[in-house]
Amino acid sequence: MPSYLHWLLRMRSVGRRTVSTTELSENMKLGWIVVRKDIALTGVSGRPRVGYDIDRLIAAIRAFLGWKEPRTAALFGAGPLGTAVLECNELDACMLRIESVFDADPARAGTKVCGHPVLPLSRLPDAFRERKPEIAILCVPAGEAQSVAELAVRHGVRCVWNFASVALDLPAGVVVQNDTISAGYAMLSVKLRNARAGRRPIDE
Amino acid sequence: MPSYLHWLLRMRSVGRRTVSTTELSENMKLGWIVVRKDIALTGVSGRPRVGYDIDRLIAAIRAFLGWKEPRTAALFGAGPLGTAVLECNELDACMLRIESVFDADPARAGTKVCGHPVLPLSRLPDAFRERKPEIAILCVPAGEAQSVAELAVRHGVRCVWNFASVALDLPAGVVVQNDTISAGYAMLSVKLRNARAGRRPIDE
Repeated sequence: MPSYLHWLLRMRSVGRRTVSTTELSENMKLGWIVVRKDIALTGVSGRPRVGYDIDRLIAAIRAFLGWKEPRTAALFGAGPLGTAVLECNELDACMLRIESVFDADPARAGTKVCGHPVLPLSRLPDAFRERKPEIAILCVPAGEAQSVAELAVRHGVRCVWNFASVALDLPAGVVVQNDTISAGYAMLSVKLRNARAGRRPIDE
Repeated sequence: MPSYLHWLLRMRSVGRRTVSTTELSENMKLGWIVVRKDIALTGVSGRPRVGYDIDRLIAAIRAFLGWKEPRTAALFGAGPLGTAVLECNELDACMLRIESVFDADPARAGTKVCGHPVLPLSRLPDAFRERKPEIAILCVPAGEAQSVAELAVRHGVRCVWNFASVALDLPAGVVVQNDTISAGYAMLSVKLRNARAGRRPIDE
């Protein structure tokens, strides 16, 4: 869905109004049956010979993903991974607003990363009271992730996006999404194994 | 699988020899049926009241993922994302060896990132002839990903791990794994939507 959205926003920015399944299929490198099914999930239907209306498709994908209203986040860990997340332009298209950045390292607190002042963890209670972030994004080392997640939850966060390689133990009701770099490498490894065995690689 | 491996390696490092399904289930935050099925994929079976032999499980997971022999890679893009990949310790456990680092930006070439000298793209032909990397890891901006991937493939790479938000058009037979930061946010958004609708969040 974010890939569709990304591409559709680009098409719209160059003045396009409609798009066909074939064109989506070629640009997304997906079979047209997959594209049809994905689009059907959003509730938008195309018109024969015309295709899908790009504006309607963009609105429907945003609604599907809950990206019509901005969501606010606090990011923890201003190292390379945290910086990569802050630099990720597509998160703007996802209506994610990272409003505060924390780092436990006193050498980093006080500096700026991508225009955000890096705050020490001691500033968290005040910052959270003021800004009430919905999501805590953890780009901290694995050994710190649990305690930082607990701190964020204790101050009202109900959703954790965890890039650290550790399973978090949080109260029921807290939504957790784990995204580690090595999980992607595991997928790649399975595809390589299948490709070598002469089997078709796993679809995206 | 990488999470199991990570945790099992840690258990082994503190002297543990066996592990039970219950313990795996608690630490991975997964149901025990899921754990049993995952382990069954590796071909290892446990013994009643004893559990799984940790050494055998580590070897079996590595074999399952093709992580018994090291794989070599070249990384493109020495910015924050590339640095985060280079810093990712778990990729060592996956037997991935990143042997060369390239960046098109003349200001970066000549510097060092995580101990790796950053090379200009003009050095690619020689470096690839010498080191024959299996995998190209793309941490470059979306606009550069296609041309860099083509360059790597022209010099013998048959596998691309793509962190850029763009669908690559590469010859058949090239294995591609796409991992963008915003794809993880899409998963998180769907979980949040389901949680608010009172439904059970999607399982990991």
